[in-house]
Amino acid sequence: MSFTLRRAVLAVCLIGSVASPVWAAKKPNPSPADIIKQSKPADWRALDLQNTLVMDVNGSQVIFELAPRFAPRHAANIRKLASEGYYDGLAVIRVQDNFVTQWGDPADEDTAKAKSLGGAEAKLPAEFSIPYKGLPISRLKDADGYAPVSGFLDGLPVAADPKHNQAWIPHCYGVIGAGRGNEVDSSNGSSLYVIIGQAPRALDLNITVVGRVLKGMEALSALPRGTKALGFYEKPEQYVPISKVKLLADIPAAERPALEVLRTDTDTWRALVESRRHASGDWYVHSAEHVNVCNLGVPTRPIEQAKG
Amino acid sequence: MSFTLRRAVLAVCLIGSVASPVWAAKKPNPSPADIIKQSKPADWRALDLQNTLVMDVNGSQVIFELAPRFAPRHAANIRKLASEGYYDGLAVIRVQDNFVTQWGDPADEDTAKAKSLGGAEAKLPAEFSIPYKGLPISRLKDADGYAPVSGFLDGLPVAADPKHNQAWIPHCYGVIGAGRGNEVDSSNGSSLYVIIGQAPRALDLNITVVGRVLKGMEALSALPRGTKALGFYEKPEQYVPISKVKLLADIPAAERPALEVLRTDTDTWRALVESRRHASGDWYVHSAEHVNVCNLGVPTRPIEQAKG
Repeated sequence: MSFTLRRAVLAVCLIGSVASPVWAAKKPNPSPADIIKQSKPADWRALDLQNTLVMDVNGSQVIFELAPRFAPRHAANIRKLASEGYYDGLAVIRVQDNFVTQWGDPADEDTAKAKSLGGAEAKLPAEFSIPYKGLPISRLKDADGYAPVSGFLDGLPVAADPKHNQAWIPHCYGVIGAGRGNEVDSSNGSSLYVIIGQAPRALDLNITVVGRVLKGMEALSALPRGTKALGFYEKPEQYVPISKVKLLADIPAAERPALEVLRTDTDTWRALVESRRHASGDWYVHSAEHVNVCNLGVPTRPIEQAKG
Repeated sequence: MSFTLRRAVLAVCLIGSVASPVWAAKKPNPSPADIIKQSKPADWRALDLQNTLVMDVNGSQVIFELAPRFAPRHAANIRKLASEGYYDGLAVIRVQDNFVTQWGDPADEDTAKAKSLGGAEAKLPAEFSIPYKGLPISRLKDADGYAPVSGFLDGLPVAADPKHNQAWIPHCYGVIGAGRGNEVDSSNGSSLYVIIGQAPRALDLNITVVGRVLKGMEALSALPRGTKALGFYEKPEQYVPISKVKLLADIPAAERPALEVLRTDTDTWRALVESRRHASGDWYVHSAEHVNVCNLGVPTRPIEQAKG
């Protein structure tokens, strides 16, 4: 039996690591890999020291980026919490299949034992959307059932409703939000969740999205699912330890992850989107001629690769 | 700190187990839980003895259902493979984050060591779609960027293109397909994959979908991701053992899972879809007024519950 006969499903680069294989090129469509190979150094940007966090989840590194344009107050609070060491020693307390992985202080229900938020705010105003008008969105031409407009901005997926002058980050795979209670101003970034399944877009405009994972999703998506209601873990010994969460600016330069991110305001990005819209390569016999904002990952690459 | 303040994201029943909490009711919208509570016994169906399989993945049970209407030849072949014990002792060999978990014979590349397919076919014609005309689809009114029509049939998500008289099972979370090589007739059901992330709809109409998982997805979705190209595991010791896969008809009646499935041709199902389209409960401040075919799970429940 040949390798391809029984094993291959196909190669699609879904969450956007350049290291992952991508579908093969068929003329005249260049493959995503070719497009990236032909990119210019200026198509890439460095990690933002003030808005990138490195989290240690049970020994694995997760790198995520905040979205200060969309949630400035939450970004500032998370920065403060990280800088003061609030997250160090917390844990993943919830993993609900096809929905979210959530982390925070397991003792946060108990005022006597809950960790102090230090200099951070306990309550923040809802940052569910920002004004749409004038935003330089790299807009997709493809229809999205959940929003009249979709695209990318600052490396983040974006959905928008021009009629109501609203733009927001849709709940795509890898997107991070701040847990809240019934009051819209009850989140503060001390407990965060990441989407690990089919985009639950019903959450859009109901909760503050604070950023997205750039690298290391598998440390959050492959965790055992919790068996209590909503996927909470039953017992403290099931909690997955988060030993530290550091802001890039607080990490010595030599120890920072050497990663760069493709800019989504470039022709390279637009070519990449176009190549995903159309099937290419020998495997495909049908092309969707469509792409959804949540099926596009923004590529990252090691900085060494750029210099090589 | 209250439970809700820091911990809650919200409760959404995504993959459709009745045991999972669902969003709370706000008048006049009944909640999914209420709708199910008010369902009639006739709204539910038994598992199909000839088209349901029980798979043991590293000690956890996965129950999945074949789609004989959409892929009759593949369903028959998989039934044959299961009945002859082909799958017993195989393994999960690939887990690609936000994409697929795939299982089969780790030795299938080596003709000398590959397990015999016995009485099953080695090659089957592509079963990528069936004629749309006349299919009794429980149609959704919501637009789907990937297909002009979407809905449910036989408890399965369905997408369709009336102009080309085609209907197919879209690659939603939990959907199972048959791996193939570059030739469209190169699949036989000996290696199967299940979708574990954002629906990769670019696969639609390119590969034969054979069914979907009814219960036990977490045994396939929470596995460690493979680190080789396409998410294949590097070493044999990483393979996740599949000790057996049995057709329900081949399992003694007393040992069969006592599960029933909500019919998707019922008013109860339609009410459930409607309740998912609109946000309800105190938590939501915005309602999407839209639902995607891949955001709707078909509920199952223990048969005891129905009698209780």
